[in-house]
Amino acid sequence: MSTELLDTLVATVGAANVLTGGDLSAWEQDWRKRFRGRALAVVRPGSTAEVAAVVRACAAHGTPLVPQGGNTGLVGGSVPDGSGRQVLLSLTRLNRVRAIDPANLTLTAEAGCILQSIQDTAEAQGLLFPLSLAAEGSCTIGGNLASNAGGTQVLRYGNARELCLGLEVVTAQGEVWDGLAGLRKDNTGYDLRDLFIGSEGTLGIITAATLKLYPQPAAVMTALATVPSMEQAVALLQLAQARLGPGLTGFEVMNGFSLDLVRKHFPQLRQPLPPSDWTVLLEQSDTESDAHARQLFEGLLEAALEAGVITDAAVAETLEQSHAMWHLRESIPLAQAEEGLNIKHDISLPVSRIPAFVASTDAALSARWPGLRLVDFGHLGDGNLHYNVQAPAGQSAADFLRDQEHAVNTVVYDAVMAHGGSISAEHGIGELKRDELVERKSPVAMGLMRAIKGALDPKGLMNPGRML
Amino acid sequence: MSTELLDTLVATVGAANVLTGGDLSAWEQDWRKRFRGRALAVVRPGSTAEVAAVVRACAAHGTPLVPQGGNTGLVGGSVPDGSGRQVLLSLTRLNRVRAIDPANLTLTAEAGCILQSIQDTAEAQGLLFPLSLAAEGSCTIGGNLASNAGGTQVLRYGNARELCLGLEVVTAQGEVWDGLAGLRKDNTGYDLRDLFIGSEGTLGIITAATLKLYPQPAAVMTALATVPSMEQAVALLQLAQARLGPGLTGFEVMNGFSLDLVRKHFPQLRQPLPPSDWTVLLEQSDTESDAHARQLFEGLLEAALEAGVITDAAVAETLEQSHAMWHLRESIPLAQAEEGLNIKHDISLPVSRIPAFVASTDAALSARWPGLRLVDFGHLGDGNLHYNVQAPAGQSAADFLRDQEHAVNTVVYDAVMAHGGSISAEHGIGELKRDELVERKSPVAMGLMRAIKGALDPKGLMNPGRML
Repeated sequence: MSTELLDTLVATVGAANVLTGGDLSAWEQDWRKRFRGRALAVVRPGSTAEVAAVVRACAAHGTPLVPQGGNTGLVGGSVPDGSGRQVLLSLTRLNRVRAIDPANLTLTAEAGCILQSIQDTAEAQGLLFPLSLAAEGSCTIGGNLASNAGGTQVLRYGNARELCLGLEVVTAQGEVWDGLAGLRKDNTGYDLRDLFIGSEGTLGIITAATLKLYPQPAAVMTALATVPSMEQAVALLQLAQARLGPGLTGFEVMNGFSLDLVRKHFPQLRQPLPPSDWTVLLEQSDTESDAHARQLFEGLLEAALEAGVITDAAVAETLEQSHAMWHLRESIPLAQAEEGLNIKHDISLPVSRIPAFVASTDAALSARWPGLRLVDFGHLGDGNLHYNVQAPAGQSAADFLRDQEHAVNTVVYDAVMAHGGSISAEHGIGELKRDELVERKSPVAMGLMRAIKGALDPKGLMNPGRML
Repeated sequence: MSTELLDTLVATVGAANVLTGGDLSAWEQDWRKRFRGRALAVVRPGSTAEVAAVVRACAAHGTPLVPQGGNTGLVGGSVPDGSGRQVLLSLTRLNRVRAIDPANLTLTAEAGCILQSIQDTAEAQGLLFPLSLAAEGSCTIGGNLASNAGGTQVLRYGNARELCLGLEVVTAQGEVWDGLAGLRKDNTGYDLRDLFIGSEGTLGIITAATLKLYPQPAAVMTALATVPSMEQAVALLQLAQARLGPGLTGFEVMNGFSLDLVRKHFPQLRQPLPPSDWTVLLEQSDTESDAHARQLFEGLLEAALEAGVITDAAVAETLEQSHAMWHLRESIPLAQAEEGLNIKHDISLPVSRIPAFVASTDAALSARWPGLRLVDFGHLGDGNLHYNVQAPAGQSAADFLRDQEHAVNTVVYDAVMAHGGSISAEHGIGELKRDELVERKSPVAMGLMRAIKGALDPKGLMNPGRML
């Protein structure tokens, strides 16, 4: 039945780009090895026109499509299911930067461009593309946009959504929508761009994007500061926002246990401050000069120290020290993996509610699971915590995950909802949280989403079973 | 036939809030008096629940609804048609600020709140709500969001869209979607918020919004500068962006004729600089101090003068002088109205294309209509020009408008499209540009828009005949 489709796909993209045999695990399995499926074929088109032709061919045969970029997602949104009936559409061959316009501060890139290569292309022009996240060396901009990726500079520059001015999309009907305008203002109709961004490939396939660039900052300052409580971490955020304004580009928080884990598993990493219940990583970007940046940054930390908001601070004196501070922060998920399986969360809350959320949820979890350990860290400036749960010391992490994950999630997500938060801040829904979404999202919102899905993808062939 | 509906509406919102007789021109006519209709009734609900009940009643009777805020729109999007069959739904009684959360930098306001009252509420907490436009004393936040309003600070803070974190919406079925989350990150499904923002009431009715606030700047600097050409105006923008970064909050351009008109009709307004082909208004917001702001701002202007990018500059020394400079800029549309009827445009282009667009379009228009006068001004920092056309001196402005508007628009919009621009940057589509949109927008985009409209408003009762 599918021979005819495969013949058409081969005729469209060439035999070398239709993979049906051998080891396809690079496409069929996610990098965390939590999701594994089997594809009818891995198809690798080389142009937008080829993507459109592939979509039309699949539509004609009623064959579902799963688009994939760098396959670095965390929610099982970009690997096929186990049916062997889905075509895995890899966008990695669409990897040209089509244009860069320094006077308009825009860059147009194809979906398969690696995020880091876009950062580098901008930097070569003295400009900044500020989207930055751990997977930047292998994730693609198409995937970043399809999942509305967040990262470490959202506080100042926004999510992937806010960094995109225009899109090129292949619709479920295999038509090409050219919405690649490099415009800051455009009120000609519904906001199709933002509908496709974050839709995880369930409405159409992003093939290219026009992105916002910024001038490179003249200086960047980084510091670690210990704070006595989450309340004081929020107070420090407010103080930093008032004093640095848009100069505050990073504000990460890490609890004591998360840095303990880094200390245990990566003892070679120097930790410039003594252990504390909470440590904050601050980053300031300055448009003027090193001297100006330092004066402003040290003024902030002195004022915070004087007010008792922080108990200690270490300012990076060199770029190397700055990288080492960020490296500490980025080592937390790795240290956690070394410690054993764990239950991950990616939640967001109004910043004002975070201290109460953390206090009451910590208490509720510890009461039910004595000795349970919390790896609590994240982008406090955006209200986004990776509030992860590790089994009590001495217990089997695998058993705990298997037996308690659902119950732990219920406690955490109930608390998130009670505080006006979200169960997915930056990782998306995919397959992992699809059922949770139905339970947690308002029925009116779900109804609107289903109506839109039905209107744009009436055959239900675009990444089915994900999100909805 | 409609007695039953009117009885239901009276029972829902009270007889005092269902207006069917007397002078209803405040609701039935737009403020520029270009659009005038007749409503079946003007209905003024006092709560979200009442809005939902009104929508359900109208849906049951197949009666179309036209939502209206402050009725300050420019494209005929919020007055009823002439049929006498449409219910005009006024949101002005939904005028409570429901909450303000300084630690989360958010404010939740009902749709009928006047923009200025929201600015004032934020300011009373030492915070800034940066949406700012000429109609702010009478426009409502619901209308601002429904039309994705722009204004004078988009360069730094974005359009109304970028200033909104969450919405409450009454759907076409009369259900209430509570999406009022005050979250910077939320990847739980399709971006319904941005779909309703800018949809001009054609998909549902915005009843409340959670808005972003910012710290108040410590100092604001304003200057006028003359530049020899549009090329140099763009060069000044790039220089200012590089040196001030996010501190650059305003960058307006005005051609010589637009300031000549202000000089002619408002001679009492002092113009600090001599006439020039182009004049730029710059605004810088600083998080530090007056002294720091001045040093940075004057440094920029000196560098620009030295490089020949500007020919002269005047920096406001007092708040009064700063207001006077903005007042000059804001007087252009009024001076233009004094001069007579004219053909207005609200276009956007990639900033890098503006010099070529202006040069070639000026030439094309002048060749075809010798003596034609261009009132060219706008938000150059956003690539948004109000490229308005006034009849040649001595000709009847009314005749010119009547006879030449379509031909002039064709020349201008053809050029806009050729340069990758938009025919509506910040004013929207409404009734005014609906037909133009079909001609200019890609058929694929129009198809997607119609599919969404059909899915969310299958009976076609939400602001029919607007946008689509």
